Amino acid sequence: MPRPHMEFFFEFASTYSYLTVMRLPALAEAARVQVTWRPFLLGPIFKAQGWNTSPFNIYAAKGNYMWRDMERRAKRQGLDLQRPDPFPQNSLLAARVAQLALAEHGGISFCQNVYLAQFDAGQDISDPTVLSACLQAAKLSPELLESAQADANKHTLRQTTEEAAKRGIFGAPSFLDGDELFWGDDQLETALDWAKRT
Amino acid sequence: MPRPHMEFFFEFASTYSYLTVMRLPALAEAARVQVTWRPFLLGPIFKAQGWNTSPFNIYAAKGNYMWRDMERRAKRQGLDLQRPDPFPQNSLLAARVAQLALAEHGGISFCQNVYLAQFDAGQDISDPTVLSACLQAAKLSPELLESAQADANKHTLRQTTEEAAKRGIFGAPSFLDGDELFWGDDQLETALDWAKRT
Repeated sequence: MPRPHMEFFFEFASTYSYLTVMRLPALAEAARVQVTWRPFLLGPIFKAQGWNTSPFNIYAAKGNYMWRDMERRAKRQGLDLQRPDPFPQNSLLAARVAQLALAEHGGISFCQNVYLAQFDAGQDISDPTVLSACLQAAKLSPELLESAQADANKHTLRQTTEEAAKRGIFGAPSFLDGDELFWGDDQLETALDWAKRT
Repeated sequence: MPRPHMEFFFEFASTYSYLTVMRLPALAEAARVQVTWRPFLLGPIFKAQGWNTSPFNIYAAKGNYMWRDMERRAKRQGLDLQRPDPFPQNSLLAARVAQLALAEHGGISFCQNVYLAQFDAGQDISDPTVLSACLQAAKLSPELLESAQADANKHTLRQTTEEAAKRGIFGAPSFLDGDELFWGDDQLETALDWAKRT
């Protein structure tokens, strides 16, 4: 019997994606659900809604709530939380590198390292030296930074982002089991249960 | 030792408030948390954000997701779900009546009846005859409908709505333990845990 499967769409600048990226691997393993990690960009999706930055910056009450909620949840999860400056970070290069890293052993560690660099160490994830350190800590070659800028790889990220929008994704983290969409870190368990059941 | 306490802000037109209103009483009782039910209106809060209707109507992807998510959650909770027409419903009169009903035994039943009328029976909750039936089913006097239109009672609802905005509320259902805000039906358990702990 094939193992149940789901897709995980995440954005490196997304706060709630941080929580998910740190806890998903163990939960997916326990649920025996195979997960395809798909980095994408929220920027173009927000722009299509008429927003030129994160809605957490545009809507003050929502933003204030998010930061307090993240503080509580990070603490519960045993994680530190720094507010990135600027927020949201430019996550373009990180997402391009992740596409290549995730094809190799160590890809998930790289992704976790990027979130920790941003939200635990307060580093700027658009800085190639930060990403290089994240690759090395995951035992991956820093040369991926250069390969990531190849046209074909850039194109893949644009395609993933367009696909995300077409499949109804409007925020991150998002989980897809076929057409069935689950949105938000607190829906991770529900999404895994769904994938197991179907 | 006084029983732990939290405030529950809900809006009769809100889909996710339906889920909470139906399951909160049993959970609060089990957690031994005393809950103050506070009906309020999201309309003025949305208007201040520049929205003249529910964000679920303005942002199609969010709206599509919400209806599917509600379908899944209602089913899990053993509830039926009809899409109100129009959506969102005009909840002004229901909220005014609820303020008076909640001062009496049967107030919570009245609130549940209004949600069931809307989301299970597909009725229009701005219709006084619908609200009258909800009162009678909760063994409350239909005369509350008229008392609800007294100036002082209208004023109370405006005040609650202003207070909600001032205290950082931007959606429903919302739970407050002092300054600590929790938003969304899936945060009900977390909010009760928080209230118990503090």
